[in-house]
Amino acid sequence: MPSSEQPIYLDYNATTPVAPEVLEAMLPYLRGEFGNPSSTHPYGRRAREAVDQARAQVAALLGARAEEIFFTSGGTEANNLAIRGVAQARPERRHVLTSTIEHPATERLCRHLERQGWAVSRAAVDAEGRVRVDEATAALRKDTALVTLIHANNETGVLQPVRELAALARAQGALVHTDAAQSVGKVPVDVDGLGVDLLTVVGHKLYAPKGVGALYVRQGTRLEPLALGGGQEHGLRPGTENVPYIVGLGAACELARGRLGKDTERLVELRERLWWRLQAEVPGMRLTGHPTQRLPNTLNVRFPGARGSAVLAGAPEVAASTGSACHEGGETASSILLAMGIAPEEALGAVRLTLGHATTSEEVDVAASALARAWRAATGGGER
Amino acid sequence: MPSSEQPIYLDYNATTPVAPEVLEAMLPYLRGEFGNPSSTHPYGRRAREAVDQARAQVAALLGARAEEIFFTSGGTEANNLAIRGVAQARPERRHVLTSTIEHPATERLCRHLERQGWAVSRAAVDAEGRVRVDEATAALRKDTALVTLIHANNETGVLQPVRELAALARAQGALVHTDAAQSVGKVPVDVDGLGVDLLTVVGHKLYAPKGVGALYVRQGTRLEPLALGGGQEHGLRPGTENVPYIVGLGAACELARGRLGKDTERLVELRERLWWRLQAEVPGMRLTGHPTQRLPNTLNVRFPGARGSAVLAGAPEVAASTGSACHEGGETASSILLAMGIAPEEALGAVRLTLGHATTSEEVDVAASALARAWRAATGGGER
Repeated sequence: MPSSEQPIYLDYNATTPVAPEVLEAMLPYLRGEFGNPSSTHPYGRRAREAVDQARAQVAALLGARAEEIFFTSGGTEANNLAIRGVAQARPERRHVLTSTIEHPATERLCRHLERQGWAVSRAAVDAEGRVRVDEATAALRKDTALVTLIHANNETGVLQPVRELAALARAQGALVHTDAAQSVGKVPVDVDGLGVDLLTVVGHKLYAPKGVGALYVRQGTRLEPLALGGGQEHGLRPGTENVPYIVGLGAACELARGRLGKDTERLVELRERLWWRLQAEVPGMRLTGHPTQRLPNTLNVRFPGARGSAVLAGAPEVAASTGSACHEGGETASSILLAMGIAPEEALGAVRLTLGHATTSEEVDVAASALARAWRAATGGGER
Repeated sequence: MPSSEQPIYLDYNATTPVAPEVLEAMLPYLRGEFGNPSSTHPYGRRAREAVDQARAQVAALLGARAEEIFFTSGGTEANNLAIRGVAQARPERRHVLTSTIEHPATERLCRHLERQGWAVSRAAVDAEGRVRVDEATAALRKDTALVTLIHANNETGVLQPVRELAALARAQGALVHTDAAQSVGKVPVDVDGLGVDLLTVVGHKLYAPKGVGALYVRQGTRLEPLALGGGQEHGLRPGTENVPYIVGLGAACELARGRLGKDTERLVELRERLWWRLQAEVPGMRLTGHPTQRLPNTLNVRFPGARGSAVLAGAPEVAASTGSACHEGGETASSILLAMGIAPEEALGAVRLTLGHATTSEEVDVAASALARAWRAATGGGER
């Protein structure tokens, strides 16, 4: 049973638990197999083999080669490595194309590049949260060094036209990066299918632990490292390898490869059940984002006449998030929803409900009732 | 019994196993307590509390305040954050003082700064591997932004005169960083006692996992972040916190605080036993580094008339390292030993034997015999 201390977890886009299979794979490397992969003795050699195997597992999920996978400490680092790394390696090209719905790591990096004298264009999205390809294409320049576009937005789950934009951008000599933090493991992600040069993978969105990620770097792509040190990861990401988590990321990718498809169907079914239940109890509720071009696990809804934060506060048996930011001055609506043209007051009604492998239909039903009850209380309707 | 697959591990300076107590502390955060510390629901709040507790534990070991501890993915990142972070935050000061016996992360960063127009001075060491304070002091300039000096060298274990140099450097307005990767947990390390502004802590040298570290940043010290993203670690180190490993680093620091002293004595005893046994069997063997101003667990010896790599190859029941680098062109002697004035051929005779909490006197005895046997074989003496 859910309790206020162990509420129903519907916040899988914030972070996932570590899958039991992933933890099992990791544990030997947190116990007896503790070698440093740089050591040449058997402890080190076995650690090196484990890292190599994980690299192949990550590559297999993405349709990449093992030597194109570079392990990082997570998505922020992978995005920084991709975006700064390309900018610094191609100083003759002074333009970056991105969108208005990126993760803060990407957006803040772009603002930093602007302060350093780069030009940055931000492609707008339509009312369903998808980047307009025509507008994005028009913003491409001869000196575009990099196009960086999130693959699936974390708040709405809307899948972006990476493939379409990548083809046009690469024809002009730009490199293409996609932050696939939310999509890897939830939908098929293939680096050649997408036509990208760089792709960010984040362990803790994929049932591996927080603190590990990977950057796919297409063979031949020049990048400057963020940090300098030893020769690990071919010098692109120095520092003693996090063997247990790298093994975990490999195991999570292998698990995802086996689950994709049947798991997707189950998640879509549960998500639609949640959506119908909520609609039935909350007249005027709106769906945020594209109805189908969306991650199977993500449901972002807007409660009418109440703030999402108030709804969640009134439903302590549900753990979810709003996308808005709280600070001393009050509450600010999600910049992602504002970019979609949603009015600020309406955007403050948003709640993001994100499902995962462990979510059950009972949880969905209890959560829907609790959220509806909280909405009625927040709008003055009281218990019904 | 040691075997060629499970040799006696005498390479604790390369990496340590995770202490069982540390793994126990971590496991809940790899299982049910998987929240993202940025989430405001109970899963997130408990994760935040765990991170806060770990921060206090790390601070307590160093005599610092919790808010002066910033978690990183390891030592390379912490050193990069300290050295680049200060350089970028103090552009009006164009000089950095370091030593000839730094870790590659520090040395490569310093070379990078030189390419960017900075002046870098490298203080020399004496024959016992200690930086000469007089020479280092003479190299201080009015525009010295930063002094960065390793606290204990990883190959020799020799403790450096950080305190003496720090006092002089800070009097001139320089900031002082020390890479305490090898010393934290092995000897008392107190940030006020040392008088440093920045100090690097590395989890996997301290019985926490590979992939976590911390940078101590004295209150009021301005630093530029390496990466941009969310507001984690006050924006100085963005990215979702690695909660399990942060908890592990906290537990390891608490464990170290309890062990220091009695453990030190035991390690020194074992190390001296190993040293005497080796000396008895290998006439002409030399000790590398200062006889007493050294980490309690570190013994770097030079075998006469044989390469360290040959000795280790002939003693597969021992896992240790040489400090030399192998590459296609052959073997290069350790730059640390060369900096101490040791001749290249003699430096190639070095073997670094580093002990840990799990090392036993039986292991020491078996290892000493095996190394002596391998040395005799390598020098043509055969079995005795």
